Amino acid sequence: MNKTQTLMVELGDRSYPIVSGAGLLNDGERLRSHMRGERALIVTTETVARHGYADQVQSALGGSDRCRIITLPDGEEHKNLVTCMNVYTHLLEARHDRKTTLIAVGGGVVGDLTGFVAATYQRGVDFIQVPTTLLAQVDSSVGGKTGVNHPLGKNMIGAFHQPRLVLADTDVLQTLPDRELSAGLAEVIKYGLIRDPDFFTWLEQHMDALLARDTTTLAEAILISCRVKADVVAADETEQGMRAILNLGHTFGHAIETASGYGNWLHGEAVGAGMAMAAWMSHELGWLDTAHHDRVIALIRRAGLPVEAPTGMTTERFMELMAVDKKAQDGRIRLVLQQGIGHAVVTDAFSPEVLSRTLARFTSPAPA
Amino acid sequence: MNKTQTLMVELGDRSYPIVSGAGLLNDGERLRSHMRGERALIVTTETVARHGYADQVQSALGGSDRCRIITLPDGEEHKNLVTCMNVYTHLLEARHDRKTTLIAVGGGVVGDLTGFVAATYQRGVDFIQVPTTLLAQVDSSVGGKTGVNHPLGKNMIGAFHQPRLVLADTDVLQTLPDRELSAGLAEVIKYGLIRDPDFFTWLEQHMDALLARDTTTLAEAILISCRVKADVVAADETEQGMRAILNLGHTFGHAIETASGYGNWLHGEAVGAGMAMAAWMSHELGWLDTAHHDRVIALIRRAGLPVEAPTGMTTERFMELMAVDKKAQDGRIRLVLQQGIGHAVVTDAFSPEVLSRTLARFTSPAPA
Repeated sequence: MNKTQTLMVELGDRSYPIVSGAGLLNDGERLRSHMRGERALIVTTETVARHGYADQVQSALGGSDRCRIITLPDGEEHKNLVTCMNVYTHLLEARHDRKTTLIAVGGGVVGDLTGFVAATYQRGVDFIQVPTTLLAQVDSSVGGKTGVNHPLGKNMIGAFHQPRLVLADTDVLQTLPDRELSAGLAEVIKYGLIRDPDFFTWLEQHMDALLARDTTTLAEAILISCRVKADVVAADETEQGMRAILNLGHTFGHAIETASGYGNWLHGEAVGAGMAMAAWMSHELGWLDTAHHDRVIALIRRAGLPVEAPTGMTTERFMELMAVDKKAQDGRIRLVLQQGIGHAVVTDAFSPEVLSRTLARFTSPAPA
Repeated sequence: MNKTQTLMVELGDRSYPIVSGAGLLNDGERLRSHMRGERALIVTTETVARHGYADQVQSALGGSDRCRIITLPDGEEHKNLVTCMNVYTHLLEARHDRKTTLIAVGGGVVGDLTGFVAATYQRGVDFIQVPTTLLAQVDSSVGGKTGVNHPLGKNMIGAFHQPRLVLADTDVLQTLPDRELSAGLAEVIKYGLIRDPDFFTWLEQHMDALLARDTTTLAEAILISCRVKADVVAADETEQGMRAILNLGHTFGHAIETASGYGNWLHGEAVGAGMAMAAWMSHELGWLDTAHHDRVIALIRRAGLPVEAPTGMTTERFMELMAVDKKAQDGRIRLVLQQGIGHAVVTDAFSPEVLSRTLARFTSPAPA
């Protein structure tokens, strides 16, 4: 068996391990030790299935007798109740009972949807996450959020439902397109920026190894990211305050995503540019000194991420899109900003002028 | 304010009160004290709306500005995800956030569906139950089960989600058809039979008052029923064992319901006949003496319920329908039977002959 690393997410009787390393997809014994019954259903998408990852998990579990695969179409537009109905129907036709286990093999979309079906099939069955993108490995592994989209809003239908096990296999990252690797690294950098200055420094030292997809280095980065997220979530279970620091770069980023049309910029790319904007604004407020600001920008850039807003983006468009962001309360815009590397704050304690200057800087045609 | 009685369902930080008595629909203060935010959405059905109950709750909460009503079509066939989507859409169009409260005003169908929407809208919002049938008041008020039907099975999509408050108003029972009152009383009698001999005796003494719809007597019967159910559920949270005694009369009853076609016999009527069959079989096994058997039959009959299976029902049809009942494990039929009044057991420790004799007795054309 390959060398693996484990992080235990402590949630009382809902505690579960996140395991990272190479060769995990073939580890049938580990999978079975987290299943209550004999049977499982693997849920995957067409793209992921083409790489053979769902087949690997199926073989590890002893083949198709015990464990069928249902393959969903790719894309956020299929993350809805219609797709859930397909999975429910499959489960009922194959007579899966309450002891069954759903295994999500794929990115964030399939993880969110499968988790929601698991939360609601016969009032809740177990599920195991096998995230196949770096973004899903560091973002969806912790927090228990599951859900699907409604035509009027993303993730509006959902539930909190913790997995029994998360397998973050570093082998699957070898086939990930470069852009998606970088997009995942945006979230990894975020965890250093919001709460862990040592991790930020470690990332500066190990960015080349991460980009070279060294499995041990990737596993370490994944588990440190998950630990930071678990600490933040544990400190704020009711999601009223501190947890919002997880949205560093996301308010600017969502505006960029929307303005550029979903899918043109990857979420992580928009977050990268958003974190650069947050760093610039924090520096402007005197909360982040010049050397630290420059290190932030340099690391985002080294990860292969944009540090500028898309060309053509105007201050007015930013303001319009940020005002409708869910983090806007009572008309005031709240942002996640930096008070040094490793310390993020959620705040509206800034003058509108500083925000205007920030937007002007990132929407001007001047070079970086 | 009218005299009311309260039962606290103890579930740690999810504890909630069940309040029963007259005039509760107009008690806006009580409703508001269990709402986190200002806004609520009342979910009801056409029949219930015609009695004005949803309007009463709306007025108690200050009218339509704070609290809209959504009226769903009547019937089990609308308890599905399509109807849920209508409610989600209504909530999103009216911009309800996570602090909103859903208020279910109606029978079991609207309670189950509204509870499920509350469990899943934005990953969970509060809900208040205002059950308007006796069955819903004594059955749906405890246990936290919510859900909707799938074409391949009832309640296959659902979640556990506890209400913040249950208002079991006895005024609404004044308009309940006689048959539905009796059907609710079947479940009330069941609680005495499975676990509370004193309550059974109390029911013998108060059946006339209950049938005359005396509000104080009804409120007492409702809260004792809820207390018994809460005790059983608390003793068996994982639903593995003892909780199954709540199904007294239900295995025979489901067979009757299915054979007669859903809707021809009310659920409670089938349960009444099913409890009579369970009593007869328990007597046959020597577990229930003749005097007690006769008291059981007499009380079911006095409540206006059938104590015979429908004419035309055969032993073969019973066996066929009971074998597919979900309580059948490994081919053996498990039944809830009586060991005296106030003590039910879940068992397969009976010879097939006793079951055959029971079915023969209840499918023969001989008079009772």
